[in-house]
Amino acid sequence: MARKIILDLDTGIDDALALAYALGSEELELIGVTGTYGNVLVETGVRNSLAILELFGRTDVPVFAGPDHARKRDSFEVLEISEFIHGANGIGGAELPEPTRHVERKSAVDFMVESVREYGDDLVIVPTGPSTTVAAAIEADEDFANNAHIVMMGGALTVPGNVSAWAEANVNQDPEATDLLFKRAKDVTMIGLDVTLQTLLTSEETAKWRALGTTGGNFLADATDYYIKAYETTSPHLGGCGLHDPLAVAVAVDPSLVTTIGVNMKCDTEGATRGRTIGDEERLNDGVKTAQVAVAVDVQRFLGEFMQRLTVLAKNTPAV
Amino acid sequence: MARKIILDLDTGIDDALALAYALGSEELELIGVTGTYGNVLVETGVRNSLAILELFGRTDVPVFAGPDHARKRDSFEVLEISEFIHGANGIGGAELPEPTRHVERKSAVDFMVESVREYGDDLVIVPTGPSTTVAAAIEADEDFANNAHIVMMGGALTVPGNVSAWAEANVNQDPEATDLLFKRAKDVTMIGLDVTLQTLLTSEETAKWRALGTTGGNFLADATDYYIKAYETTSPHLGGCGLHDPLAVAVAVDPSLVTTIGVNMKCDTEGATRGRTIGDEERLNDGVKTAQVAVAVDVQRFLGEFMQRLTVLAKNTPAV
Repeated sequence: MARKIILDLDTGIDDALALAYALGSEELELIGVTGTYGNVLVETGVRNSLAILELFGRTDVPVFAGPDHARKRDSFEVLEISEFIHGANGIGGAELPEPTRHVERKSAVDFMVESVREYGDDLVIVPTGPSTTVAAAIEADEDFANNAHIVMMGGALTVPGNVSAWAEANVNQDPEATDLLFKRAKDVTMIGLDVTLQTLLTSEETAKWRALGTTGGNFLADATDYYIKAYETTSPHLGGCGLHDPLAVAVAVDPSLVTTIGVNMKCDTEGATRGRTIGDEERLNDGVKTAQVAVAVDVQRFLGEFMQRLTVLAKNTPAV
Repeated sequence: MARKIILDLDTGIDDALALAYALGSEELELIGVTGTYGNVLVETGVRNSLAILELFGRTDVPVFAGPDHARKRDSFEVLEISEFIHGANGIGGAELPEPTRHVERKSAVDFMVESVREYGDDLVIVPTGPSTTVAAAIEADEDFANNAHIVMMGGALTVPGNVSAWAEANVNQDPEATDLLFKRAKDVTMIGLDVTLQTLLTSEETAKWRALGTTGGNFLADATDYYIKAYETTSPHLGGCGLHDPLAVAVAVDPSLVTTIGVNMKCDTEGATRGRTIGDEERLNDGVKTAQVAVAVDVQRFLGEFMQRLTVLAKNTPAV
């Protein structure tokens, strides 16, 4: 039986690739997408998720909206660096028809809480943006904290951050939410920069999508080429773009893609290192570890799975 | 054949325990102690090492002095917190007869460089203080960087620091030296706070040393009880004192005591997080890892080895 999955996306380019990875994985049944702010505004991300689902013929998947700003703030504006990396429309300027569907009336928080109640261990939640929505679900329902299985893209434990020397972009948006998530959720797998900066894609791969001559192939190629170009400016030493969000989905399918270490995590909310994800010294000697942090990844195997799944998905869309 | 070892100590209470661990280990041949600043002044540390070697009847082991301050400073003064933890004399006020021997005329750096040339893979160097002396040896001789096997106590990768939220005390003394060590040495095992704050000793154990009724037992008990009391003030949540330096020696004897992950490390020398030890993002995708960082430890097995070795050693000293 396919494992049920909820993606919590701030759709963004690598979020789009994560969504495509989930749609291309027979092992997963995508029961819903929740939208959060981060790379883009919630409205933009929700619109992108709806449009991408439609592009791939998956109008059966509902999309829910979450909180539109961080716990300690009153509002949210897209950072200049986010717009540089993901483009003004969040998908690198790639053009998709306006979706025919709308966001659900139920909130993202309610959908998460109800889904964990209904499906328990058969469900995995993959947040690829700020922890705001998941933190709200934890506060809304103690059962959610105890029973949710979360594979998150975010944080950096053994490498520096990417918005500062210590903070990763998703976590940096709402450190209080990530701290709450780490301290109260019972099963978190952290897919941070430690591993996602090892899984790089180049224009050699996107050319294969473009060569398909399909609407899906063109979309994946257009968006990802924009992303690769941005990386050439921001991180020229890498030689490609980091497949952050898709790696989290891939690990939800197959945990053996990464090597993890058990750590009781926290997120600094005060002081110079606000936004840093690090082991919680007060729980260092607790035998039970509530987080598994990925510290190594089988790069070649992941890239093979990634290209295989997304190429098949894109092939099955209309010709351009 | 016993493995040759050099201890680079700022003798300090846990340095004294590390020295005792080495002396109590038949698997090791201690060919020399080098003295550095840190917990104490170089002169004090050298004096303590000479006195402890004499206490345990090991006047065959030479003691060498290293640089007396950090690379970027002109001098060194003992921090108030160091004096609080280790006492004014560095060994918790425990009284030892003035040593009859003196420090060698050869420098610690020359001794390290020559020893690596002579013994190569048969030698391990265990620095338990700032990285200053080892960094000087690396700069003095390229062969040293390539061939030295180093098991260091210092740093913190998956947990916060102990002098600030990001810096561990040894590394904090000379971040430039640690950074140079990480970037140029080819075989470093880092025994940081990640594991040493898991290996705790209490007064229940020191009472066993005192019950021996020997000079060695009394010394170990007196010094360590002082250290445990200091920890009760600085880190009451731990419930004991961290066996930082002895764990590094124990790992030199038996690497299977810890679980390590391969990381190409760096030490921040600039910005808010100066003194932080973290993965070097520019070498993240290098297949060769020059450091192994301990992230888990078999606490019970280590404590068993520790008590066994030190108790036998202390038993074989004169009755009080």
